[in-house]
Amino acid sequence: MRGMISLISDFGEKDGWVGTMKGVILGINPEARIVDISHRVNPGDILEASLILQASFPFFPRGTVHLCVVDPGVGSERRAIVVATPSYTFVGPDNGLFTPIYQRGDFQALEITNRALFYSSQPSETFHGRDIFAPVAAHLSLGLALEEVGPQIADVVKVDLPSPLVGSREIRGEVIYVDRFGNLTTNITQELFEKKVRDNLFELRIGV
Amino acid sequence: MRGMISLISDFGEKDGWVGTMKGVILGINPEARIVDISHRVNPGDILEASLILQASFPFFPRGTVHLCVVDPGVGSERRAIVVATPSYTFVGPDNGLFTPIYQRGDFQALEITNRALFYSSQPSETFHGRDIFAPVAAHLSLGLALEEVGPQIADVVKVDLPSPLVGSREIRGEVIYVDRFGNLTTNITQELFEKKVRDNLFELRIGV
Amino acid sequence: MRGMISLISDFGEKDGWVGTMKGVILGINPEARIVDISHRVNPGDILEASLILQASFPFFPRGTVHLCVVDPGVGSERRAIVVATPSYTFVGPDNGLFTPIYQRGDFQALEITNRALFYSSQPSETFHGRDIFAPVAAHLSLGLALEEVGPQIADVVKVDLPSPLVGSREIRGEVIYVDRFGNLTTNITQELFEKKVRDNLFELRIGV
Repeated sequence: MRGMISLISDFGEKDGWVGTMKGVILGINPEARIVDISHRVNPGDILEASLILQASFPFFPRGTVHLCVVDPGVGSERRAIVVATPSYTFVGPDNGLFTPIYQRGDFQALEITNRALFYSSQPSETFHGRDIFAPVAAHLSLGLALEEVGPQIADVVKVDLPSPLVGSREIRGEVIYVDRFGNLTTNITQELFEKKVRDNLFELRIGV
Repeated sequence: MRGMISLISDFGEKDGWVGTMKGVILGINPEARIVDISHRVNPGDILEASLILQASFPFFPRGTVHLCVVDPGVGSERRAIVVATPSYTFVGPDNGLFTPIYQRGDFQALEITNRALFYSSQPSETFHGRDIFAPVAAHLSLGLALEEVGPQIADVVKVDLPSPLVGSREIRGEVIYVDRFGNLTTNITQELFEKKVRDNLFELRIGV
Repeated sequence: MRGMISLISDFGEKDGWVGTMKGVILGINPEARIVDISHRVNPGDILEASLILQASFPFFPRGTVHLCVVDPGVGSERRAIVVATPSYTFVGPDNGLFTPIYQRGDFQALEITNRALFYSSQPSETFHGRDIFAPVAAHLSLGLALEEVGPQIADVVKVDLPSPLVGSREIRGEVIYVDRFGNLTTNITQELFEKKVRDNLFELRIGV
């Protein structure tokens, strides 16, 4: 679906930074449908942001632009990127946020270098969400061709997502997320569990 | 107004579950107008959710679908229901959330049994908001006929909403909600107060 | 852009008051695009609200109606006003919230007196956001002529926004806002700083 943009950030809801990004987006694409996923990522917590993204992005309509701004390196040399899969486009800093996307394969990454897309030719040192990422996401939601963003890159930054250890008689996983209700998400996928356990009996061991 | 959906839940804003529900809704009805009422209901607090709903739903345009997911019984045998009045449609678990609607009368209730409406034929055990309630609300917002949802039911679950005691010379009410500003909402309605007090002098007594 | 409405309030996100205002707005203008800036202003903190407004409003499309309800004087004699500039329209109580707009000049202010615009002819004593400000903002977003709101007024209320002291060899400013990340916003504008410092060396002194 064209025009859909989801948002993840660590901006919180008080300061008005999220609303400011939305104002910029709607100035470029007045028909954009903007959906908040979370703005309560712990400040600078790239791993947490990538886990929240991983749990929610597949439930959005094909064509959604997922805009993720958890950006502790803003103002440094870290690159601004766009990552495209057959179903979605992701916009944010090149700091590992999109590692769950890379793990699924079938993606291309581009560095954002086309300054004509920026909100102003002099982006702020501290708010690339407003000045770079939001306008690029808005242009993409209007159908901007990927190659207009900048050159393809092959060496995207990844974070270590904790992987389960799979032995001959055990799967050793780890809790990677605890939600508001106390639900524990492990890194043992349903697919892995079913493949390994099938109809065998199994014993669940929990340790700290 | 067709296409308007309001949301109440106890999901909080951090975990991305609310955004996930919105992604599902917009995948079914890309034109849906989604308005958050509250996602900060105390986890599992059905009474609180019903009071927040009661205070806000009448201010929405006729035709709004009110989607309410405070669902401590998810995964149990509690039913999923749709409640329709001449002005609104309500979607959620059959746990008493909609008691304020039942008190006004003139409603019909249906059990959600039509699995063709679900997000997947294998709904999760823990997230009926995403897999059942959100898609049903989205289909209703597109004009789905009520009878497509499932059979009518007569025995909806109700919670005890605290009622005022009305004596010959007194009304004995109780504070049912305290908002962010410290405003106290009692269960003595303006209508009851005016009918009882009329032009008589009255004395206000407050106790704990 | 017609139909865009931004929101600032001190209502928080739990109680449902924000959703209620949106329901009222969408009942009047079903096509309104509503964007939250912040609902976490400290209750009654007019200065904080005006600083959040100041930082965000210029990033919205021309024509946006900025609806601001931080209103500790609700139910008193304080006026309800609309402030219009060539680019934006602001709606809220006349308590100084819009001081940053007045400082830029080129505005007109009108008292809201046309009761035909209200949600009901008997507005609540405690919730003018729902009963007066939201419906007026919605009508303005539909293109209502300013003069329909009420008479022009010349004596708007202002708050003291802390101004920097500019000496011959120093600028003495003050931190006016601390955001979630600990970023400190001072009242020394980039423009003032550059004009004063130019190519001169400067020394930064910080005190409490």
